[in-house]
Amino acid sequence: MTDSAGAPPLTQPLQDLLARFEAGEPFALARSISLVEDQAEGFESLLHALHDRLGRARRLGITGPPGAGKSTLTSALARLLRDAGETVGIIAVDPSSPFTGGALLGDRVRMDELATEPGIFIRSMASRGSHGGLSATTREAADLMDAFGFDRIILETVGVGQSELEIASQADTTVVVLVPESGDGIQAMKAGLMEVADLFVVNKADRPGADRLKKEIGIVNSLRTGGPQASVPAHHGVDLSRKSRPTPPPEPIEAWDPPVLMSVASSGEGLPELAAEVDRHHAWLRATGSLQSRRAAAAAEHARIVLERAVTRRGAEAWRAWIEEVGDDAGLAGRSPYETARILTARICRDAQ
Amino acid sequence: MTDSAGAPPLTQPLQDLLARFEAGEPFALARSISLVEDQAEGFESLLHALHDRLGRARRLGITGPPGAGKSTLTSALARLLRDAGETVGIIAVDPSSPFTGGALLGDRVRMDELATEPGIFIRSMASRGSHGGLSATTREAADLMDAFGFDRIILETVGVGQSELEIASQADTTVVVLVPESGDGIQAMKAGLMEVADLFVVNKADRPGADRLKKEIGIVNSLRTGGPQASVPAHHGVDLSRKSRPTPPPEPIEAWDPPVLMSVASSGEGLPELAAEVDRHHAWLRATGSLQSRRAAAAAEHARIVLERAVTRRGAEAWRAWIEEVGDDAGLAGRSPYETARILTARICRDAQ
Repeated sequence: MTDSAGAPPLTQPLQDLLARFEAGEPFALARSISLVEDQAEGFESLLHALHDRLGRARRLGITGPPGAGKSTLTSALARLLRDAGETVGIIAVDPSSPFTGGALLGDRVRMDELATEPGIFIRSMASRGSHGGLSATTREAADLMDAFGFDRIILETVGVGQSELEIASQADTTVVVLVPESGDGIQAMKAGLMEVADLFVVNKADRPGADRLKKEIGIVNSLRTGGPQASVPAHHGVDLSRKSRPTPPPEPIEAWDPPVLMSVASSGEGLPELAAEVDRHHAWLRATGSLQSRRAAAAAEHARIVLERAVTRRGAEAWRAWIEEVGDDAGLAGRSPYETARILTARICRDAQ
Repeated sequence: MTDSAGAPPLTQPLQDLLARFEAGEPFALARSISLVEDQAEGFESLLHALHDRLGRARRLGITGPPGAGKSTLTSALARLLRDAGETVGIIAVDPSSPFTGGALLGDRVRMDELATEPGIFIRSMASRGSHGGLSATTREAADLMDAFGFDRIILETVGVGQSELEIASQADTTVVVLVPESGDGIQAMKAGLMEVADLFVVNKADRPGADRLKKEIGIVNSLRTGGPQASVPAHHGVDLSRKSRPTPPPEPIEAWDPPVLMSVASSGEGLPELAAEVDRHHAWLRATGSLQSRRAAAAAEHARIVLERAVTRRGAEAWRAWIEEVGDDAGLAGRSPYETARILTARICRDAQ
């Protein structure tokens, strides 16, 4: 690691915050997430300092159309996991979620009870106006929860829009929640929901049409995957060792076929089965090496976005400084925009020395 | 001008292209626009080399909902201007435009006739998949037409979506075209069309509802501007000279109140009146100093976008080189994304030396 790549030292307030974070104070976690949301001075150095603590938490995405009962499902699942001794961090980026304030009274009461429980940490994120891009900010909030030591992180997002799908795809396991009264399961699964689903849940399954929806999902799913899937070997790597004895062929592991579960989240029905399927998917991820490759791909994508954010921010800062210097348009008139861009790119680099 | 801000020298092929461009060969203009669309190596140096030739052409934006007859109006107006001795460049970024291939046969015949006319140059731009951002690319294509020597440039865009409105706002004068059968003028003027209009045209005015639409536009317009507008002085600048004799107050010039015209573009009805109002608006822009301030603001915004594009491109290039070097995810695992971003930003600057 060269000096130029070394992290800028943390300011004293951030060092203090880091110490309280590492001591496990929930306040320090909340404050750190706020710094990330605000893209406050030094937030990336803080994230860098915590980087070695990442990777322990299991991340679960819960997504689906508005009104599918994602929040109720999230809180019921969090309750179940907590009762089994796990700690749970929840990030809600669903604008209709009670976590973010847009909910029915019953939901809100349920959430508020959950929020005061030790070992549970709930954070809602504004789905608009995020400075650094919603997907990156959400990822970094989840990283902070991971570094803080939560066993599980649940990302609740409404499954409409590109950035929401990006958030879902950061998770180890993504659950797509649908409800019978959304009527047309095929309609509801447009916009890429099918592609991100590791598990489907037909929620409010006590209502009419649940079985039909389950069948529809199965049909769409088999059209997508091209019928029953072939087995894949557990290890793809080439054996480079020079042993003369042939190694036994690896145990074949079935490809993952997203199951369709039924639930009534408000009564807790189907939740133990969901938790078990999430565990089964996690075991599959581990056994196939998919956990590592998924996480590596997500980490690489995050690094790409961090770079893009960094260069864009530097460009915007250089532009603001330039406008202050030359005044609205003066000084631009004589120069071509390409010349102006070159001058400012040179400045950005000079200032980065 | 420092060396670091100097334009990179043009390659020999680009020098040849520039010579043919300056000699007035339409082929060279078409080729240059293609280079801009493809963001081909050296395209910004070419634009820089032509920068001193900008500012002569009058730029007119024609926008409105799909089916309003924008293309027919554009070709009729171009014909009128050409017959009056002016040269006209047309840029169509409307996907439903016959220029871009999505039109009725009659329209297409009309366009094809126009396209073969000397002194007319037509270019359609893909409204999706533009590498450098549609608004910037369109601006640069218009700059090339301006540098080539066209008297008028018409930008035809469908008035839906942010980037289309950005294109319209680059023009000196923006015409918003509506039709009676769109039914609700107020509906049609949502999405910011009201804000960019310098002139309104009720096209297909021989159909029922034209008068009602005209009235609706007038009402919406007066709600927006808050009724009859106040006069503004011709010069806003503070007089810093120390003459003891008080200078006479500047002649007041009426604020611009967007007129609502009627036309039947297919028969040419109302077109001379439209051309006259465009001229009147241009005279108003000159008299108030608005022409200069509008163009300066558009140039500054373009320079900002060019800078943003430059830093984003450098970031993407550095990222691709890095991925080739470390292979998909290897090398990321051990480093935080913030460290990776710092390493790559340092490289971008090192390579920029």
